Amino acid sequence: MAQNLSSFVEIQALSDFTMHNLPYGIFSETPDGNKRVGVAIGDLVLDLAALETHGLLQLNENIRYFDQPTLNKFIDSGKANWQKVRQTLQSLLSADNPTLRDNTELRQQAFFKQNTVTLHLPLQVPGYTDFYSSKEHATNVGTMFRDPKNALLPNWSELPVGYNGRASSVIVSGKDIIRPSGQIKLPNEDRPIFSATRKLDFELETAFVVGKATELGQPIAIEDAWDHIFGMVLLNDWSARDIQQWEYVPLGPFNAKTFASAISPWVVTMEALEPFKVKGPTQEPKPLCYLEENVANSYDIHLSVEVQSPKSQQTDVICETNFKYMYWSMAQQLTHHTIAGCNVQVGDLMGSGTISGPTENSYGSLLELTWNTTKPLTLSNGEKRGFLEDGDRVIMKGYCEKNGIRVGFGEVSNKVLAAKSFRFTEKEEASYETV
Amino acid sequence: MAQNLSSFVEIQALSDFTMHNLPYGIFSETPDGNKRVGVAIGDLVLDLAALETHGLLQLNENIRYFDQPTLNKFIDSGKANWQKVRQTLQSLLSADNPTLRDNTELRQQAFFKQNTVTLHLPLQVPGYTDFYSSKEHATNVGTMFRDPKNALLPNWSELPVGYNGRASSVIVSGKDIIRPSGQIKLPNEDRPIFSATRKLDFELETAFVVGKATELGQPIAIEDAWDHIFGMVLLNDWSARDIQQWEYVPLGPFNAKTFASAISPWVVTMEALEPFKVKGPTQEPKPLCYLEENVANSYDIHLSVEVQSPKSQQTDVICETNFKYMYWSMAQQLTHHTIAGCNVQVGDLMGSGTISGPTENSYGSLLELTWNTTKPLTLSNGEKRGFLEDGDRVIMKGYCEKNGIRVGFGEVSNKVLAAKSFRFTEKEEASYETV
Repeated sequence: MAQNLSSFVEIQALSDFTMHNLPYGIFSETPDGNKRVGVAIGDLVLDLAALETHGLLQLNENIRYFDQPTLNKFIDSGKANWQKVRQTLQSLLSADNPTLRDNTELRQQAFFKQNTVTLHLPLQVPGYTDFYSSKEHATNVGTMFRDPKNALLPNWSELPVGYNGRASSVIVSGKDIIRPSGQIKLPNEDRPIFSATRKLDFELETAFVVGKATELGQPIAIEDAWDHIFGMVLLNDWSARDIQQWEYVPLGPFNAKTFASAISPWVVTMEALEPFKVKGPTQEPKPLCYLEENVANSYDIHLSVEVQSPKSQQTDVICETNFKYMYWSMAQQLTHHTIAGCNVQVGDLMGSGTISGPTENSYGSLLELTWNTTKPLTLSNGEKRGFLEDGDRVIMKGYCEKNGIRVGFGEVSNKVLAAKSFRFTEKEEASYETV
Repeated sequence: MAQNLSSFVEIQALSDFTMHNLPYGIFSETPDGNKRVGVAIGDLVLDLAALETHGLLQLNENIRYFDQPTLNKFIDSGKANWQKVRQTLQSLLSADNPTLRDNTELRQQAFFKQNTVTLHLPLQVPGYTDFYSSKEHATNVGTMFRDPKNALLPNWSELPVGYNGRASSVIVSGKDIIRPSGQIKLPNEDRPIFSATRKLDFELETAFVVGKATELGQPIAIEDAWDHIFGMVLLNDWSARDIQQWEYVPLGPFNAKTFASAISPWVVTMEALEPFKVKGPTQEPKPLCYLEENVANSYDIHLSVEVQSPKSQQTDVICETNFKYMYWSMAQQLTHHTIAGCNVQVGDLMGSGTISGPTENSYGSLLELTWNTTKPLTLSNGEKRGFLEDGDRVIMKGYCEKNGIRVGFGEVSNKVLAAKSFRFTEKEEASYETV
């Protein structure tokens, strides 16, 4: 367990961004300003490019790792540098170290208030994969749409089921979500209609960031997998359930998931999460050898989802769950992903799949929380929700806490905008249905 | 119809690379040498970076479009530039134009024999999508694995079914294919085993290259879709059928398809393909408005697959088919891909799906050609094939021909290597099965 570090920066008791955390993000002072790497500490952002310029963070005198529009270059520099920078920052921010503490001019240049800067997508994401690793979620979905007695398909307990997502539609917290349109098949119609989705949903997930690339044809052994993981973010894998239900056979979800996958702006490192390691659920049957892991391979991360109606001033917590319920570990996901030879790249994002817990208030999607609208939620202002309505804001939060140490993820928050009107012909107008 | 252009470069009668073609690729003189843009003409490569240096191909005096390791920068410069460069090249290569013809020194600097240079992956591929748009292929697969009476799933005739592939595993012709390993479920076993695939297959496809990007939330209207397409390549979407069959429910193919997707090195432009436009098959039911297209929206492209056994000096043609059989057009695929708001990026690759024709020798995969090994092929040296064996080479070719004009794709050719041995424990050794 790391020691209780104190900083000269004021950090509120419930801040996600303590000295034990130091997550990396990309910020600019103005929306279109120069993007560079920052670290969140308390309510502030520490500008690593400024530290680099002043010679306080030089990894290599010829390379600028932090005056960059994404984290990829720093991540690609390797695990030894990740450790070195973390140690340097913990030292520079320490209450005992005068270097930054007593240099008023540099502090003015290097610290910004988080609520005054723009936070950007922290990564250039070459590949986005989404897994399906919560047994509770897969069981709930299988029960609703297939057969309650055989809710889990036979392959589910043998391998971490996953699919390729669309990297281009990964966005950062804060960006609005335009309600998507597409083909929907209503139960009593012969043919699908073109419509805005009536079943817009969130999926509460985390994602890990690949920190070390591989070559095609070079699987990652399970014992090496953790060395390939840089850190984690919160992920809202926005979904249109009615589009999904019609399109997904036999090749999987497509348009239902490619209109937006939103992540939190701060990448929390695996080093920061280390104190919160726990053993994952017992796996029965025991996985095949290449997936077998006998170490603490999960993390105790509290997760929640809040929804705010446009008619309300306050948010409602509608889900509380924990990452530790996930059946397949991130190492197992990464090893399985590469076992047939697929290569990974620095910045690849690998989603956990919806994180649902064992109780009804711990389900990570409205599909499950409202049991496909059969049990609508009642918000604190009396409104009901089956799926999301225009103007709704969805906020996901996550944090770890143990022995007085707190490491948090901040949040991923997006608001739903009304569907776009298309350039319609009269004929199209007639066939177009809104929510 | 374009005029019959003649060049001072010698072009064989059956060359794929005529004055009407002028496809773009990336080459280097040595395997690790400087990569730049070249155009195939006869048996030669014309170095566009050299022309640019000599002021013969300047689109913008401050930007080097052709001294680049991929085509992306040139493609991103826009359709007007694609047209301008094509016209300039047709003029510079013409038998009547002395500029290049009579400049011996420049000709020595700018022309290379294709068989002496290294051809590279021509694109940086941000996203790879694969469709499933051959009715014959979808019907064959549905007949074999589901229900012959309801071979096509209900959504198939309403939308171009597709899924996100893995962009990182897109490779260029020539690279060897390591037989992948993974989980396979044998019919009489309770649990899957870990094994090298016993059902290694090819899929004969073409792919189009996105030439114009869009923003998230901005669908491409069907009438604008063609403006977003730069050109086409041949694609061998390597597949492991046994891995696929076990893993693909409910989220689609994953490891069965992410070990290699190989493309031909030359990108044939849509302008070069223009004379070979034909109307695609009648679509019944008529697609929803957003997919409705009343123009010639397909291409008459002869396609073939050859296999060469390591025990044979010659290749056997095992499939001959045509792109014109494809049910869904490229414009329909692209429009559908973006209809819910998904953005596309320059260099995105969109595969057609396996191209099967109506006759048994026109099926685009061994799965169909051998009807899942029940009708093995006999090669000309007497060997039989159900699926591919180690050492087999698969060569796909494609060309258009009309009124004496020929425009060809060259080939995508890869050889199968034996599965890798893993670092096994004794226990693993016992469970590992080879082909």
